[in-house]
Amino acid sequence: MFYIIGLGLSDEKDVTVRGLEAIKNCSRVYLEAYTSILMVQKDRLEAFYGKELILADRDTVETQSDEILRNADKEDVCLLVVGDPFGATTHTDIILRARALKIPTRVIHNASIMNAVGASGLQLYNFGQTVSLVFFTETWKPDSFYDRIKENADLGLHTLVLLDIKVKEQSDENLARGRKIYEPPRYMSIPLAVSQLVEVESLRSTGILHPDKTLAVALSRVGGGDEHQRIVAGTLQELLDHPKETYGEPLHSLIIVGKRLHHLEVDYAEEFAINKDTWRTVAKDVYGCSLD
Amino acid sequence: MFYIIGLGLSDEKDVTVRGLEAIKNCSRVYLEAYTSILMVQKDRLEAFYGKELILADRDTVETQSDEILRNADKEDVCLLVVGDPFGATTHTDIILRARALKIPTRVIHNASIMNAVGASGLQLYNFGQTVSLVFFTETWKPDSFYDRIKENADLGLHTLVLLDIKVKEQSDENLARGRKIYEPPRYMSIPLAVSQLVEVESLRSTGILHPDKTLAVALSRVGGGDEHQRIVAGTLQELLDHPKETYGEPLHSLIIVGKRLHHLEVDYAEEFAINKDTWRTVAKDVYGCSLD
Repeated sequence: MFYIIGLGLSDEKDVTVRGLEAIKNCSRVYLEAYTSILMVQKDRLEAFYGKELILADRDTVETQSDEILRNADKEDVCLLVVGDPFGATTHTDIILRARALKIPTRVIHNASIMNAVGASGLQLYNFGQTVSLVFFTETWKPDSFYDRIKENADLGLHTLVLLDIKVKEQSDENLARGRKIYEPPRYMSIPLAVSQLVEVESLRSTGILHPDKTLAVALSRVGGGDEHQRIVAGTLQELLDHPKETYGEPLHSLIIVGKRLHHLEVDYAEEFAINKDTWRTVAKDVYGCSLD
Repeated sequence: MFYIIGLGLSDEKDVTVRGLEAIKNCSRVYLEAYTSILMVQKDRLEAFYGKELILADRDTVETQSDEILRNADKEDVCLLVVGDPFGATTHTDIILRARALKIPTRVIHNASIMNAVGASGLQLYNFGQTVSLVFFTETWKPDSFYDRIKENADLGLHTLVLLDIKVKEQSDENLARGRKIYEPPRYMSIPLAVSQLVEVESLRSTGILHPDKTLAVALSRVGGGDEHQRIVAGTLQELLDHPKETYGEPLHSLIIVGKRLHHLEVDYAEEFAINKDTWRTVAKDVYGCSLD
């Protein structure tokens, strides 16, 4: 059997009981290590599982899937994925490959940011499509995410924005020279994300992302408990001005709040507001929420 | 501490290790038993946890939350919720109440249908807002869900439709007489859901839900393994004509496929198609997918 097992969002104890049992029975355990990260290191997972982990980078999962799947028709092999296995396309690829090889597969689900975002107090029903925001460079500023946010905003829906993560990336020079030397990992911060959003708004000027009139919620390490989880709510400008350290450790995500905002959502997220007065005033005056 | 703990989607082993540890330390363990169901009964959960469970119906969670929260500032108390704690509004209510009482809270996340729907092979990024479909009666056929599906469809997005569940409902007569006699639980089936969708389409006639030109995917007991999980894909008409038993046990959900459908999504979900030829033909000719 080939298992793809979601690890959930924060540490080794977020695996499910079913997932842990499956891991313990596997002869090879791969850890997918490029689309997301846990708050803990590989050795802590290994100690908890009592198993050695094989790191699987993008190249391994995408082009060497037959090696991962080797003998999985005769023994149990698993690929561990942070969050839920169906966050990223590449995992459907490897399941399709397993099917072609007639290897039975089983997916063990877990929480992912796609549902744990509810921790903000914003209702999952009120979210539109999710978008990704990549690091801009001097010459490459892909902005199709803006159209998606606008589609959601026009319907009054919230948008979950997933922030870029660069793991095991090569510099242009190293890539050109074929040198397998990798840059240190980079995780997009909330202020950088907001500044990129505001930069694109200044070019498009549709008004969906206004520094003082658009509310947003920043999330970090959701589900990690009070000592790790950070949720910060405010206007885009407030989030931009807020000290970077207060957002906690990566990974970060950002919610752009839509106009269908409900007063219960305002009440709940107020707990996380940089400035409770601004939060309620904008919710009332700009979003039209009926608040006491 | 007051914990709200997600149990995941299928049985007792879907709880996380962190969740199980918390349950074992609680002096009172409540099981929320009205917005969703697990595949297993209360006694099996009790045996697995080594704890007695207190069933909490809607009335208890919504109006007697102070009883649930009693002493939670001094001892550990938890509320168990199928899926993830932030699927339904009522759980934000009880956390707000705990905050007002200065009781520390912690949420332990898990998979919910909102992310596990990725098991269909349809990408989470391509989903718009989620809708709920309630049982129609002769005199009450609320159809605002149709506007939501149309908003998604106009953007080419998929819609997750959550099907109604009636647990501990009273008949009009028993309600009027104040008799606490409850009807047997009812779970909306896929054919009934599709017939309600088609009924509303026949009134609205915008063409977003066409019997032979709209693709949909039915899901049941996602994550329950091959012996329980059922995923069935086809046109609305095929789903309507398909024997009801083949959809497996409740709960059921339904995805209305949007036009932004990607060929990899078609390939993956083809495995679940009632008729692979129809599936690919409609994807190609109606949805405009580039398929081999």
